[in-house]
Amino acid sequence: MSSDEFRKQGKLMIDWIAYYYDDIAKHPVLSQVSPGEIKNQLPEAAPTDGESMAQIMSDVNSIIMPGITHWQSPNFFAYFPANTSGPSILGDLLSSGLGVQGMLWATSPACTELETRVLDWLANMLQLPEKFKSNTDGGGVIQDTASSAALSAVLAARERKTNYQTNESGSLGNLVAYVSSQTHSSVEKAVKIAGIGKNNLRLIGVDENLAMRADILETAIQKDLQDGLVPFFVCSTVGTTSTNAMDPLPEIGKICEKYDLWMHIDAAMSGTAAICPEYRYILDGVEFADSFSFNPHKWMFTNFDCNCFFVADRSSLIKTLSILPEYLKNQATESGAVFDYRDWHIQLGRRFRSLKLWFVIRHYGINGLRYHIQEHIRLARLFAGWIRSSADFELVAPAPLNLICFAHKNGNDFNRKLLETINRRGKMYFTHTLINGQFVLRMSIAQTNTQIGHVSQAWKTIQETASELSEKE
Amino acid sequence: MSSDEFRKQGKLMIDWIAYYYDDIAKHPVLSQVSPGEIKNQLPEAAPTDGESMAQIMSDVNSIIMPGITHWQSPNFFAYFPANTSGPSILGDLLSSGLGVQGMLWATSPACTELETRVLDWLANMLQLPEKFKSNTDGGGVIQDTASSAALSAVLAARERKTNYQTNESGSLGNLVAYVSSQTHSSVEKAVKIAGIGKNNLRLIGVDENLAMRADILETAIQKDLQDGLVPFFVCSTVGTTSTNAMDPLPEIGKICEKYDLWMHIDAAMSGTAAICPEYRYILDGVEFADSFSFNPHKWMFTNFDCNCFFVADRSSLIKTLSILPEYLKNQATESGAVFDYRDWHIQLGRRFRSLKLWFVIRHYGINGLRYHIQEHIRLARLFAGWIRSSADFELVAPAPLNLICFAHKNGNDFNRKLLETINRRGKMYFTHTLINGQFVLRMSIAQTNTQIGHVSQAWKTIQETASELSEKE
Repeated sequence: MSSDEFRKQGKLMIDWIAYYYDDIAKHPVLSQVSPGEIKNQLPEAAPTDGESMAQIMSDVNSIIMPGITHWQSPNFFAYFPANTSGPSILGDLLSSGLGVQGMLWATSPACTELETRVLDWLANMLQLPEKFKSNTDGGGVIQDTASSAALSAVLAARERKTNYQTNESGSLGNLVAYVSSQTHSSVEKAVKIAGIGKNNLRLIGVDENLAMRADILETAIQKDLQDGLVPFFVCSTVGTTSTNAMDPLPEIGKICEKYDLWMHIDAAMSGTAAICPEYRYILDGVEFADSFSFNPHKWMFTNFDCNCFFVADRSSLIKTLSILPEYLKNQATESGAVFDYRDWHIQLGRRFRSLKLWFVIRHYGINGLRYHIQEHIRLARLFAGWIRSSADFELVAPAPLNLICFAHKNGNDFNRKLLETINRRGKMYFTHTLINGQFVLRMSIAQTNTQIGHVSQAWKTIQETASELSEKE
Repeated sequence: MSSDEFRKQGKLMIDWIAYYYDDIAKHPVLSQVSPGEIKNQLPEAAPTDGESMAQIMSDVNSIIMPGITHWQSPNFFAYFPANTSGPSILGDLLSSGLGVQGMLWATSPACTELETRVLDWLANMLQLPEKFKSNTDGGGVIQDTASSAALSAVLAARERKTNYQTNESGSLGNLVAYVSSQTHSSVEKAVKIAGIGKNNLRLIGVDENLAMRADILETAIQKDLQDGLVPFFVCSTVGTTSTNAMDPLPEIGKICEKYDLWMHIDAAMSGTAAICPEYRYILDGVEFADSFSFNPHKWMFTNFDCNCFFVADRSSLIKTLSILPEYLKNQATESGAVFDYRDWHIQLGRRFRSLKLWFVIRHYGINGLRYHIQEHIRLARLFAGWIRSSADFELVAPAPLNLICFAHKNGNDFNRKLLETINRRGKMYFTHTLINGQFVLRMSIAQTNTQIGHVSQAWKTIQETASELSEKE
């Protein structure tokens, strides 16, 4: 593609995206296609000769777009947010254009050094302990997802407890990991990937707010020690995916300290709220943690993928993940004066992801980011208030931030039907969870362009559809 | 950022990128900065209030750009290629703009179905066996890197041999994995991550061309069986990173079949060549493989990250990586009629990566892709010919495709000095490897815009610098 053609097609694409956002609320939020419907419209063989961008974009419009669920719609209240923004899209575009690799400092020094600086900015913005900053024994790195961050934490913890890379047998012994019954499934996946084994994973019980019970955790650790097992890792969550429950970090932290367990904190979505002084309390106890992760690609206007993973002692992490073949050796690495981030995660290759994060933080400024987070929480509290004062609906879990778990009083089947009816009609999209057998509706309020009008319209839609379904029964 | 502002800033960014490519050869290819030089120019704290895109781009130009090593320069011959192209950048921009999640079919059906279709296209283009296509028990998925693909292969192999997810203990027993001494370090990393242990990884010896020796592999397997261990996994490489050595797939495949080992093929860079009929022979023996991966983000004009991972029996993979919490349950998943790609890799979240790959394949067409690959190989053969007819340099390994390993006859110290001198001057960038103690220069010829003039200039630079250094000695 010539330079002139790239300029022309690139500007058309920018216009396409701008138009998409202008017009996004006109699409059904949840794609209405059936399995196979998109694939069957795509030819079975790749084209022999090249095609024009006009042909490709015509197929985007006619074939691809009906199969899109619009995560960036202001009427998207499902799962968790994956919000983005103009500056993020442009930062990511610049990263694609530069096309550099950041596996080593030497392969593009700016890619490593901007990342280090921006992660230190975030450590300050979240008031993380000094030990998570790059000028100590710790530091931050961008990972793709909270899943990979959790796996990295498990591996670093495994290393610290067993000296896995250097011990005679390289065997794991009888390590035991602890999560709550509400912890994100990615941590269970990480523990299993690391070869710990399903018999060595404990699902700790939760309290009435679905937060991990520290007393049950300690009892479980003591029993495992008596049985000759080796407790090594606890994941505590700041804002569970299912209901936004907050595990008691200080209590868990003291137990981890007492028994020498690696404490990982998964604050994937909710962590962002801690940049607001009035919500910083959700991280009280983070000073006990060995690692901490949150996702700007969820609730900080930065497009996927962008997880920020902080570690207090990077040596365990690097020791277990570093392998240096000859063709990657270089003076900077050997001097020890630089970070080589490929030693901080699973992958070797890495793109220049800090650009989009840097663009977002600079475009909004700390005040701008706080404003949008505060506004989302304000809208969520309004919505929670409407539920509280409704005769037909009830809140089912505390709503500390931007996620509201609620249910119609007519029971599980009715709630399921209500959810499916609304989502099928396409004006808004929300999802569900199960709490102690109850089918619960979830409203996650955190899209970049969601405003009061979208939330009040959603509440109106939910009420009207419930009335309509009640009358039919 | 308003829609109008996005249009304006987006078009400026497109122009910036077009200008970057027009002008790329004017930059020193290897960044010339020292450790800390970039970071020290960046403020220690994030801005309190938002800043303009003009301010941000001014810092990109003055602070970031000197810290960039120009992987997209036609004079970049280092490491391995990570080439990209206009259509790929635009496809990735569209993916950023749409900002959808593809973790489940239901979260954006087009994201899953386009990926399935395009991976089937690639299976055809590479003439992979039918078992790797989505209408059989197998199929393809886009992973971030060959490292993650290798880890997924190890985990699926572990599952098949131990029924890890369902066996009573969840223990791994005494599994043993086999790679060659030349296999990419990511496979060793994957084996260790999976808890197999360093004592259970065998580095099999290689022949004079640095390819794995099948006879040594079989002897090692037999010895491990006699010792009561459980051989389960072999990684064979089509084009090693160090020297582009080709492991003997049919011989290794027969051994894997005989002893029931999972055979993974890592064809990260070289796999692309197999889309050309005259180079398809490099995959002869792929019919024995259980999994196969290659990187369009290396040598197929698709920007990072884009690894294509094919598996013959997806059930082992899905069984070991699938965890389904309530809040992700949905009718499409429960019907079994769809793929949920988050069960095919480590991460949960995933972006719409097949767009860029689809754009590239359609823009170039199969013939266009073949043309560029053939051209790179033609240039590499020219370069190898110049080395062969030179009195001062010699080829040190076979050059089957686009990587040439060579050395000046003056010995290791001279070659190291030659490499460092040329790279410091910035006109071109190439790197090294070690072969049996010999310091060897590597020319990797595969950048999108590399033409005969760049390669002949590189050879001229190498010769002239060698003469200059010889005279000084």
